[in-house]
Amino acid sequence: MLVYSSPRELAAWRDRVRGMGQRIALVPTMGALHAGHATLLRAARAQADKLVASIFVNPTQFGPLEDFDRYPRQLDADQAVCREAGVDMLFCPPREDMYAGDHSVYVVEGRLTRGLCGPHRPGHFRGVLTVVAQLFNMVQPAVAMFGQKDAQQARLIQRMVRDLHMPVRVLIAPTVREADGLALSSRNRYLTEDERRRACALSQALRLGEGAYQRGVRDADEVCRQMRKHCETVAAPVAIDYVEAVDFERLEPVRTLADGVLLAMAARIGGTRLIDNILLGRERILGAFDLV
Amino acid sequence: MLVYSSPRELAAWRDRVRGMGQRIALVPTMGALHAGHATLLRAARAQADKLVASIFVNPTQFGPLEDFDRYPRQLDADQAVCREAGVDMLFCPPREDMYAGDHSVYVVEGRLTRGLCGPHRPGHFRGVLTVVAQLFNMVQPAVAMFGQKDAQQARLIQRMVRDLHMPVRVLIAPTVREADGLALSSRNRYLTEDERRRACALSQALRLGEGAYQRGVRDADEVCRQMRKHCETVAAPVAIDYVEAVDFERLEPVRTLADGVLLAMAARIGGTRLIDNILLGRERILGAFDLV
Repeated sequence: MLVYSSPRELAAWRDRVRGMGQRIALVPTMGALHAGHATLLRAARAQADKLVASIFVNPTQFGPLEDFDRYPRQLDADQAVCREAGVDMLFCPPREDMYAGDHSVYVVEGRLTRGLCGPHRPGHFRGVLTVVAQLFNMVQPAVAMFGQKDAQQARLIQRMVRDLHMPVRVLIAPTVREADGLALSSRNRYLTEDERRRACALSQALRLGEGAYQRGVRDADEVCRQMRKHCETVAAPVAIDYVEAVDFERLEPVRTLADGVLLAMAARIGGTRLIDNILLGRERILGAFDLV
Repeated sequence: MLVYSSPRELAAWRDRVRGMGQRIALVPTMGALHAGHATLLRAARAQADKLVASIFVNPTQFGPLEDFDRYPRQLDADQAVCREAGVDMLFCPPREDMYAGDHSVYVVEGRLTRGLCGPHRPGHFRGVLTVVAQLFNMVQPAVAMFGQKDAQQARLIQRMVRDLHMPVRVLIAPTVREADGLALSSRNRYLTEDERRRACALSQALRLGEGAYQRGVRDADEVCRQMRKHCETVAAPVAIDYVEAVDFERLEPVRTLADGVLLAMAARIGGTRLIDNILLGRERILGAFDLV
C-alpha cells in the first residue's frame, strides 16, 4: 500500500493510473477507522481498479466549540485497517497542503442543509462539501463511497456532484452496527461505560419507528413522538437535537411514512453528540440514490 | 467544428479526447463574441491539443435588476468567430442542463470579493464561480483562458482553482481595446453614439494613472482622485461605482503604487455599467499570475 502525504505525489500517481485507463474509487475519512469504514472500503474496492482512502481531520467542518482538538488520531492503526481492506493508496495530507493560510473559497448548499443537523452545526456542511470537493479534484475518482450513518452528508455530496456536474458517482453504503444496535462511530470512544449503555436508545428508537411502519402505522408525527419518548426514557439524561421523518430526496419533513422516508435523530449524551438514522424500505429504493 | 448542447455528448467527446492523452483548453464565454474573445481563443489554441469554447448566458451571475433578459444572443455569428479561431468543439448547453430546477449548490469566495465589483453586484461572483466550476468539471480542461478585462473574476477563478485543488491552469490574457482605448465588451453595444464617446473616459483615466506611475508618482489616493476627476469630467453625466488601486494578489486597496498594482474602475453611463482596469508593470510580473 502506498502512503502519500504530498498532493504532488498524489497527482503524479493519479495521472499514471488514469493514463492507463484505470478507474479510481475513493473513500474519504477522518481516520479513527472502525468496522464501518472497513465496510465502506471493501464495498468501494469492488467498484474500481484502484482503491484510494484519505485520512484528513478537516478543520473547516468543526465548529469552534466542537471536538476538532480531541478528535482521535491513530495513523498506525488506520494504516493497518486500510491495508487489510485492500487500499492501493492512502492519502494523508497535512493541513497546510489542503488549506492555504488565506483560503477563501467554499462550497455551500442551501436546501438539504436547512433541516436535521444543519441548524445545529452551522458551517459544518460547508466544511464537508469543501473538503470533499478538494479531494474529488485531487484524486479524480470515478466512484466515491460514503456511509449512510451520515445520511445528510451523503445526500448533500450527491447533490453537490449533481449540481456542479462532478464526474464521479457517489454510492451510499449501509450503516454498520454493534451487536446491540449502536451505530459505529469514531465518537463512540468518547462515551463512558454508562453513557455507552444509554446510547443504545437511539438505534432502539429507530427500530421502534421502523417496526411501527412495518405494522402499517403511517403518521410520521406520532412515530417520531414515540421514538423521542423512548430515547428520553432510556438514554436519560439526554439532550435530543431532533427526531425527524424526512424524505430522502429533499430531506424535508413528511407527514406520512413511506418507502424512502428517513427516520433520523441526533442526541447529546454526556459531552458526546450522536446521530443515527434508518431508511424505510431501503432495499426497495436502492437504485434511486445509489445505495449499495 | 463540433457543436454540442448535450452534457452527455460533451462527456463522451471529452473522454475520447482525454483517453488519447490529449490536453483540452477551455474558453468559457456568454457569447456575443468580439475581438477580445477571439484573442482569448487564439491564445488558448496554442496551449493544448483541443480547444473548447462554451457559450452560456449564466442566469445565476445576473442580479434581479441586471441585464440577463436583454444580454445579446447571436449564436450564428458566435459560431463563425469560434470556427475562425480554431475551436474544435463549441458547447452551448440549455439552461436546464446546467441547473436543475432545485439547484442548491454554489461556490462562494469571501476575501477577493469584498472590494471592487463585489459590493456592487451581490451574488454575481457566486454565480460566476459556480458556472465555471460546472464547466471545469464537465470539460476537464488542462488550461482555461480568461480576459484581464474582468480582472477580479479572473483572480477569483485562480483562487477557486487553488483552494479547491482543481486540476486546471487558469491563464489571463490581455484586454483588447478599440482604437480609441475603449475596452471591448459585449455590453458596449448597449451604448448610444453619445454614450460611446463618453465611455472613452474610463480607459483615458487608466492611462492617465499609468502615466503618473511611470513618471514616478506613488501616492495611490492622489492618482485615483485624478482618474476619478477625469472620468467625471469627460464622461459626464456618469455614476462612478469605484476607482481603486488594489494589489493583484489580494485585491485589497494599496496606499503606494508599484508593479502588480491594479488600477480598476466601474462606472455607469446611461443604463450601461462599464468596467476597465490596467495592471501596473504587467510585463514584469507575468509569471506570478499566469498572465499571458
